[in-house]
Amino acid sequence: MRDALVAAAFELFLERGFEATTVDDIVALAGVGRRSFFRYFPSKEDVVFPDHERCLADMTAFLESVAEDPEPVARVCDAARMVLRMYAENPTFSVQRYRLTKSFPGLRAYELSVVWRYERALAAYLRRRFAGWSDGDLRADVIAAAVVAAHNNALRSWLRSGGEGDAEAAVDHALALVRNSWAPDGGPAGPGEPADEDVVVVITKRRTPLWRVVRELEGGQGPG
Amino acid sequence: MRDALVAAAFELFLERGFEATTVDDIVALAGVGRRSFFRYFPSKEDVVFPDHERCLADMTAFLESVAEDPEPVARVCDAARMVLRMYAENPTFSVQRYRLTKSFPGLRAYELSVVWRYERALAAYLRRRFAGWSDGDLRADVIAAAVVAAHNNALRSWLRSGGEGDAEAAVDHALALVRNSWAPDGGPAGPGEPADEDVVVVITKRRTPLWRVVRELEGGQGPG
Repeated sequence: MRDALVAAAFELFLERGFEATTVDDIVALAGVGRRSFFRYFPSKEDVVFPDHERCLADMTAFLESVAEDPEPVARVCDAARMVLRMYAENPTFSVQRYRLTKSFPGLRAYELSVVWRYERALAAYLRRRFAGWSDGDLRADVIAAAVVAAHNNALRSWLRSGGEGDAEAAVDHALALVRNSWAPDGGPAGPGEPADEDVVVVITKRRTPLWRVVRELEGGQGPG
Repeated sequence: MRDALVAAAFELFLERGFEATTVDDIVALAGVGRRSFFRYFPSKEDVVFPDHERCLADMTAFLESVAEDPEPVARVCDAARMVLRMYAENPTFSVQRYRLTKSFPGLRAYELSVVWRYERALAAYLRRRFAGWSDGDLRADVIAAAVVAAHNNALRSWLRSGGEGDAEAAVDHALALVRNSWAPDGGPAGPGEPADEDVVVVITKRRTPLWRVVRELEGGQGPG
């Protein structure tokens, strides 16, 4: 019945628009009562994003499943990929929803609050892992925001393209950029790192900005 | 009249709560008509954040005022500081509003949309500056998100403390963390960088994760 409500809602949203569609319209088309609708969805906005609650719960469980993770930044990247997979499971639906969300400020606000909850879930995990470290909470918040921004940059490109191309590869590439800059925890830096074993000797002054040293090591592949 | 409306609104919000206060209550206390209220504020939420529109406009003007900035990351950090200064100008009001916002989900959602607009303003500037660079849009989005997260981490700590301590120093410290990791553009890395002139020789393998090299250069001051 839940799926039938989502299908009916989207049929009407796409036909009439989000605002012109009432919950009564949706339940009439789905052939169920109002009470059934509200058993599954607290509001009309929630039926637009039917899988986020489950995904948030899955993400939280995933982050809590390992007490001592040697690679917390890699783990939050993996957690972010759970959101991508939810979108990529059903490209047609995801692209329709993206277009719908763009056109209604109310849905955009709802989406921002969902994104915020994902970001806080990632940050809460990192804060626990960085507890006692210098600037632990700050680093946790910044890394969580960077991971979410990288993930969403790749996700939105894919949605804008109409769901063409390899969304997972695009997200992997975006997340590698964050991991290369931020991973303070050890472990491989993931896709995007140079793979060869050459020894590099860098002679620099201690006051040289770190970005300059990093660019040197990247072989000048950074911007600028 | 605008200030009188804000003062009346806050007196009532703190006394009765945000939801129990109507626009009619506010205009009655301020001694003006409803139309005057809506001339200044599109909604009751807007009176809670009366200076964000001006701050957003100032920030956009600041970011557009220099066509060829040699240090775009430093510039978005300076742009973010404009928000901090707005809060720090009036600590009592800012702390009251922080407490009010925390207790009403509707205000929280409104605040998220404001934060999103700041982040997009920073990202739009960086996207222009990084145009043509490899992963320019992605880097712009990630850096904007990191700057906003760092700024808000310091701002929220200051607000939680009741407006005690040096908010500007806390924000400078937080932004330095982002600049040290991300500044792909040159210029000094800002506060937080080692200041002495020692020469450092780093011998590493090319595949060593950059964070590990960076930590080495930082003298092991990073977490872990």
